[in-house]
Amino acid sequence: MIANDPYAELERRFARISAVGRAGAILNWDRSTMMPDGASEDRADQLATLGVIGHEMMTAPDMAELLASAEDGKASLDPWRAANLREMRHAWIHDNALPSDLVEARSRAASACEMAWREARKNADFKALLPTLAEVVTITMRVGEAKAAALGLTLYDALLDEYEPGGRCQRIDTLFADLEAFLPGMLQRVMERQKAAGAPLPLDGPFPVEAQRRLGLEMAGTLGFDFYHGRVDVSAHPFTGGTADDVRITTRYDEDDFARALMGVLHETGHALYEAGRPRDWRRQPVGNARGMVLHESQSLLMEMQACRSDAFVTFAAPRMRAAFGKSGTAWEAANIHRIYTRVAPGFIRVDADEVTYPLHIMLRYRLERAILAGDLALADLPAAWNEGMKELLGIVPPNDSLGCLQDIHWPDGAWGYFPTYTLGALAAAQLFAAARKAVPELMAAIGKGDFSPLLAWLRTNVHAKGSIADTDTILSQATGAPLGTAAFKAHLETRYLSA
Amino acid sequence: MIANDPYAELERRFARISAVGRAGAILNWDRSTMMPDGASEDRADQLATLGVIGHEMMTAPDMAELLASAEDGKASLDPWRAANLREMRHAWIHDNALPSDLVEARSRAASACEMAWREARKNADFKALLPTLAEVVTITMRVGEAKAAALGLTLYDALLDEYEPGGRCQRIDTLFADLEAFLPGMLQRVMERQKAAGAPLPLDGPFPVEAQRRLGLEMAGTLGFDFYHGRVDVSAHPFTGGTADDVRITTRYDEDDFARALMGVLHETGHALYEAGRPRDWRRQPVGNARGMVLHESQSLLMEMQACRSDAFVTFAAPRMRAAFGKSGTAWEAANIHRIYTRVAPGFIRVDADEVTYPLHIMLRYRLERAILAGDLALADLPAAWNEGMKELLGIVPPNDSLGCLQDIHWPDGAWGYFPTYTLGALAAAQLFAAARKAVPELMAAIGKGDFSPLLAWLRTNVHAKGSIADTDTILSQATGAPLGTAAFKAHLETRYLSA
Repeated sequence: MIANDPYAELERRFARISAVGRAGAILNWDRSTMMPDGASEDRADQLATLGVIGHEMMTAPDMAELLASAEDGKASLDPWRAANLREMRHAWIHDNALPSDLVEARSRAASACEMAWREARKNADFKALLPTLAEVVTITMRVGEAKAAALGLTLYDALLDEYEPGGRCQRIDTLFADLEAFLPGMLQRVMERQKAAGAPLPLDGPFPVEAQRRLGLEMAGTLGFDFYHGRVDVSAHPFTGGTADDVRITTRYDEDDFARALMGVLHETGHALYEAGRPRDWRRQPVGNARGMVLHESQSLLMEMQACRSDAFVTFAAPRMRAAFGKSGTAWEAANIHRIYTRVAPGFIRVDADEVTYPLHIMLRYRLERAILAGDLALADLPAAWNEGMKELLGIVPPNDSLGCLQDIHWPDGAWGYFPTYTLGALAAAQLFAAARKAVPELMAAIGKGDFSPLLAWLRTNVHAKGSIADTDTILSQATGAPLGTAAFKAHLETRYLSA
Repeated sequence: MIANDPYAELERRFARISAVGRAGAILNWDRSTMMPDGASEDRADQLATLGVIGHEMMTAPDMAELLASAEDGKASLDPWRAANLREMRHAWIHDNALPSDLVEARSRAASACEMAWREARKNADFKALLPTLAEVVTITMRVGEAKAAALGLTLYDALLDEYEPGGRCQRIDTLFADLEAFLPGMLQRVMERQKAAGAPLPLDGPFPVEAQRRLGLEMAGTLGFDFYHGRVDVSAHPFTGGTADDVRITTRYDEDDFARALMGVLHETGHALYEAGRPRDWRRQPVGNARGMVLHESQSLLMEMQACRSDAFVTFAAPRMRAAFGKSGTAWEAANIHRIYTRVAPGFIRVDADEVTYPLHIMLRYRLERAILAGDLALADLPAAWNEGMKELLGIVPPNDSLGCLQDIHWPDGAWGYFPTYTLGALAAAQLFAAARKAVPELMAAIGKGDFSPLLAWLRTNVHAKGSIADTDTILSQATGAPLGTAAFKAHLETRYLSA
């Protein structure tokens, strides 16, 4: 028997699925920040069980009929409910493509591989990762095949669609080709210009962790991070986790270089503000989720790269940095710090990369993960292929796999099809920030005084509060006048790095 | 259709119920230690949902038939499996007595009241707690009535049975009457003796939190706490949470009195060792659970009161305390510290009470919670009844409700029928410690050298590894030669406080 009001019944069920997912999000955060190592198998069992329970709720025998009945009555739903129903269907197709045992195997394989990765990275020992990573790839391919059939997509597009609904390789290939034609020349010109100008003065450390932590909290608060609904902690791989009402961001401290942690905090704060700004009435329903990883990454990069490496923000931040570490002198003037924060140079580590070279790191990963999933690259050959790609794209070769193919958590963690969203996010960030500056003339002046409220208000209205009511391109078009493209990003790089 | 092997199917289901319960345990810990205040409603929703999911798995339509079929084949099960089936049935009766909506309401009411309690206690404002506490009492009475009917017990015994399976008021009344006849005279004699001997020298603070924390970790490690499978954190109300593979204990620091945190850590370490010592092969099945709160509390009190307030332990610990705080002098000699740690005096706060007056705090709570649940005491009259009882039992009246009826988390948190297990645990602790000393002659000498391994080995074998294979009295009888009684506790008090 079907419910009297099938849509209302679906909302009830998705609220419950959301609660299980939110519980899992906190447990995931705990695993990376608090959990003692000996509990990894215990935690894997908890997370796999919650995953299967969520999957079973989603694929309950009467769900197909509930969705169909609700869709029959769609004409009577208001726009939020209609969009919610569309998102429910999308989520259902993804889940229903997979049998429960595959969901459980995927969760357990990722947990096992993530734990192996922590050790393997520490020891620069790719071989130690190989067995569990091979298992992750095998399972990911099974997942991709099943979802490809259900969605009528290629295997890679089906995986990408989990992170960026509607995201497709064809589109990415076009955008990346555009960047690949632009970036090498850009990089060369920036490097020459920097060389001519001479190196900025180094900031003299060390920078005690506690002082860094306090500065990070102060700056996160300046951007709008709400500590009544969130925390900042430490983890090996910085991330934003938790829930919209309980946002947990992490960073890691390096006593020789406080910018890594600080910029990490500003980056994750961008993610956190998106999460915290999701529509209050819908945040426990599919339509209230963040639209996808492209817009999510746009929010972190907009804060870190667009706003916080601007002259305006560095001018505001420099005296606070001096106060935090008790420093003075020419090196600590805003102009010098700004030069440091906009320094461009090829490096091994993606998360430390500047915004000119960052897309090249992504192109490498995108290329490699597609080859692996297509069966064109054996996992055992990954380190060699990585180093070759680094040489080709960035002109440097990492001295070991910790600085190479072991640096990222994503593949061990099962996030295949995720990497391209970083660079698509960088494009969206440039596009959104340009639109915000145009719409709000006083925006940069306010940032120069440490007042992020005009920027945040614009982002709340034009991105955060939209949740998943429309697709990424629609949200971008409404906010910026155009779908996702490379023009704003290229213009931004030229303005920041080649003019003035 | 019933499974081919109904017992195996039950094990599969209870493993899953255990995983959901363990996830909830970590989320509960997080709520008390890490969660930002603004997330309380979000967390309440997660915990209520997990509670209902666990309850639905337990009360699935075919569970009654599965249990009955497995019980038909009980003769073929080995002792662990037979006991596991018995524990499954017991858990099922408890859960099956309650409809899902009552389970959810109970969880939500406790979450709401716990949050209100934090504020109310801070402000000594009982009236602010009254609305949510009234809701908790109403729901607890509904729960108690439903379970009483299912178990054939009185309402209070049905609630007590959740925490101490087989625990009954009749037995408690007898044991408590015995103590009530003994303690007032005992207290008077100890106080006179102490007065004649003069006060111990005070330890001169303040004691920085970080130094306290390090000392606490060192001492927890000395007792056998395994940091590879556990953590020590801070919370308003100290507790042991988490799972057997991931034990989370908490304490709170007072810079004027390091004994509070240190003794708290030693107490919770006793709980933690029990959890960590549960049978490895059965810890995710009902038979692998701790037997009940009486034995659980026996393990914490055995460590804190029996072992760690002994001359032997204080002699070992005193130089480490001096080193931790950079102290010296007569006050810091073991003899003086031992006098401090065995000081007896009526006080307002249960968790800070000495072992002579502690049972009187419990008797007060036991008396009051029975009266409230019987409808003989209106909640609004609780503060007055509390103060009257304090005057009668301990001869002192708290100046405000924060030091009175607002001090404990248990009633707000929905744990009615829990309090008596503390004093039953104290009796069991004395009985077990006496048996251990008799069985292992070198036990105290080892403790004097900071070697807890002989004690821990005896506890592992005689208590921890037994899980729930037998009932509390059977475990106690096998370990000590007698069921739970008052003799060892009274003998212990007389030896420690009135002889030598």
